[in-house]
Amino acid sequence: MTSFRLYGHHESGNCLKALWTARYLGLDIEWVEVDIFKGESRSAAFLALNPAGQVPVLERSDGRTLAQSNAILTYLAEGSELIPEDSFDRAKMMEWLFWEQYSHEPTIAVRRIQMKFHARRADDLDPELYAKGRRALGVMEMRLLARDFFVAEQLTLADIALVAYTRVAHEGGFDLAEFPAVQSWVRRVESALGLPHAADHAMAG
Amino acid sequence: MTSFRLYGHHESGNCLKALWTARYLGLDIEWVEVDIFKGESRSAAFLALNPAGQVPVLERSDGRTLAQSNAILTYLAEGSELIPEDSFDRAKMMEWLFWEQYSHEPTIAVRRIQMKFHARRADDLDPELYAKGRRALGVMEMRLLARDFFVAEQLTLADIALVAYTRVAHEGGFDLAEFPAVQSWVRRVESALGLPHAADHAMAG
Repeated sequence: MTSFRLYGHHESGNCLKALWTARYLGLDIEWVEVDIFKGESRSAAFLALNPAGQVPVLERSDGRTLAQSNAILTYLAEGSELIPEDSFDRAKMMEWLFWEQYSHEPTIAVRRIQMKFHARRADDLDPELYAKGRRALGVMEMRLLARDFFVAEQLTLADIALVAYTRVAHEGGFDLAEFPAVQSWVRRVESALGLPHAADHAMAG
Repeated sequence: MTSFRLYGHHESGNCLKALWTARYLGLDIEWVEVDIFKGESRSAAFLALNPAGQVPVLERSDGRTLAQSNAILTYLAEGSELIPEDSFDRAKMMEWLFWEQYSHEPTIAVRRIQMKFHARRADDLDPELYAKGRRALGVMEMRLLARDFFVAEQLTLADIALVAYTRVAHEGGFDLAEFPAVQSWVRRVESALGLPHAADHAMAG
């Protein structure tokens, strides 16, 4: 079996979703922690792995490397049950993967970084970021009103990619109680992936 | 043969790249112009096609719709020579497609919109947007120094997706003369797609 090394940061949803996918599929994967807050993703050694200076990076045993979280997901899961067999369902899954990186991550994950890691207060932040994040959660809510999963009535990469930052959206000041279908779906996907419920953990902690 | 309708705006690289891909592959596709500057992508009729309110949208003859430009590209080109056969090459192509939407389009296309369509002057704009756009062009320059195309020494969707806003980057105040490998690659991809050279056109016009 091919073995992989995954360079990532333990608080990054982009990195964790690749780890969860690999574990769900029973792949042989080794985690290498990169301290992005200490500039380790801008070191010469890291830039040799990924000139764009971003985590995650997947390294194959032959040394070839792959960046971009959702490209890593589709590569790891190729031919598995996490990718629908029907070509249009597969295309819809890709639609959500691209939407996640364009409209969800740059608002919800970015606001979380500012509040949780840069200790910025909500009223110091760009209000547009909050508005756009809520709009993204609203798009998800509409999609999930009559569905258990984003595509093809099954767990796919779209759910794994989207749950990564949605489950910790409260750390960016978003209230998932406003989006009940999203909230139920988060628990459903966390269960399927064997993850603890992030919001419970937050309340306990 | 399946026929498609493509809802888009004629100045949007995200929309044009889907049209170019369909034409390159000889698919039966009909263009429907959506005037995004007059709010037509926020109308009830359009939101029924794509609740996210974004162009492009691909509509199949059975009425099913697909959004997100690069998801449309991968769907239209499935099984064609625009997607490499080797699974790792395919993954690298996906890496560039995700990178394009995350690091290239939000800087280069956004600055072009502000300058060309909102008549903003360069010194009124966020300097970060210019810095990030130049960094994206620098990443492309490094990749293309020893390559004719982004992946697998052949024209793939990665080139089509990336050329869309790179060929008109001058309209966003970027100078491609600083990135000679990118500049040659733009001409190469424009030739392969049968497009006029955008920069020549700009100079003539």
